[in-house]
Amino acid sequence: MEPSKPDLVPNPAVRRLSLYLRHLEVMQQKARTTISSKQLGVALGYTDAQVRKDLAYFGQFGHPGIGYRVDDLIGRIRRILATDRTWNVILIGGGNLGRALLSHPGFGPKGFRIVAVFDTDVSKIGSPAHGLVIRPMASAPLYLRENPVKLAILAVPAEVAQHVADDLVAAGIRGILNFAPVALSVPSDIAVNSVDLTVQLEQLSFLVNSTESTRKA
Amino acid sequence: MEPSKPDLVPNPAVRRLSLYLRHLEVMQQKARTTISSKQLGVALGYTDAQVRKDLAYFGQFGHPGIGYRVDDLIGRIRRILATDRTWNVILIGGGNLGRALLSHPGFGPKGFRIVAVFDTDVSKIGSPAHGLVIRPMASAPLYLRENPVKLAILAVPAEVAQHVADDLVAAGIRGILNFAPVALSVPSDIAVNSVDLTVQLEQLSFLVNSTESTRKA
Repeated sequence: MEPSKPDLVPNPAVRRLSLYLRHLEVMQQKARTTISSKQLGVALGYTDAQVRKDLAYFGQFGHPGIGYRVDDLIGRIRRILATDRTWNVILIGGGNLGRALLSHPGFGPKGFRIVAVFDTDVSKIGSPAHGLVIRPMASAPLYLRENPVKLAILAVPAEVAQHVADDLVAAGIRGILNFAPVALSVPSDIAVNSVDLTVQLEQLSFLVNSTESTRKA
Repeated sequence: MEPSKPDLVPNPAVRRLSLYLRHLEVMQQKARTTISSKQLGVALGYTDAQVRKDLAYFGQFGHPGIGYRVDDLIGRIRRILATDRTWNVILIGGGNLGRALLSHPGFGPKGFRIVAVFDTDVSKIGSPAHGLVIRPMASAPLYLRENPVKLAILAVPAEVAQHVADDLVAAGIRGILNFAPVALSVPSDIAVNSVDLTVQLEQLSFLVNSTESTRKA
């Protein structure tokens, strides 16, 4: 069953699908064949009702008295997340973060292949980077005409991020994973997922401060 | 008013506080003095009811007919997130990702200061890294005894992440921002925030695939 109304699925539910998938893949490696919503929930800190609700957005997967078949659920979630195929991705930014992303071991096995890397910094252009050669940003539109790629990762300084995003959208990019600490303005049919590393640290300072307050109280 | 029951505040609400803060800081730079829950919501894609509900977890901030005073709300959210002080942070991993994090321009102004970097890789130890020198991981416990630091960023390969996390927790670290693509097992009073970059890309492939399905339909 295809996700018929993706607009109605809340983002946090989609995020949890990824986490369910990660855990199911570990279970598969351990040769587990079935798992209950309760077991899946406990492993990730959610209730079994939450697990069942999240999956129910996309159809009926469980088997009464058995739970979910691990292989089957992995296949279904990959189809839902559209990672049952390989997505070519271009990377903008050949600095430290860009190089870290190029050598990230997790992307390939999960269906994401970085096929080209671009930079606006002339001192970086032409340098080798993890089997690729850094191309000039100005050549990205031509590249995208010849190699239709839908996803881009933005690992550039905040000052240039909006300008680069505009160029990418004009050249046909449909989704941007943004690491620049800035809110990008894009047309409504373009997907943007921003990873703000400061937000991640703030969540941590909140939690640590909360537990310390509790301990002192 | 202090957050009296932090356990009852859902994680997504805390995450939105960070996003509200980012937007309020931009408004402050533009010399805006007040903002309504509706304006704050529209800017970030939430309803005004959501904004009011999130803030209500922590007390009463708004003024009828005026909305929120920007300076005041910034100060209050920083106190809630505990970023009204400076948090020293140690970084484990002096590879490309570690170096990218060291040079991240956003941490310092938001209250996070990376004070030391450690690595298990002997070929990296002693190398300069953005004004610091990479120390041997084995020296981290002694460092933490002499310099009480509560937060650590883990930018190490998945294979060593759990081992490193165990050592950090034993040495007194209270919160870990984890970039290794692995679920860390830590005591319940230790905060872990994992940034799984593959999950971020999967959210994007889901969204792009959904919008393309809608366009074709």
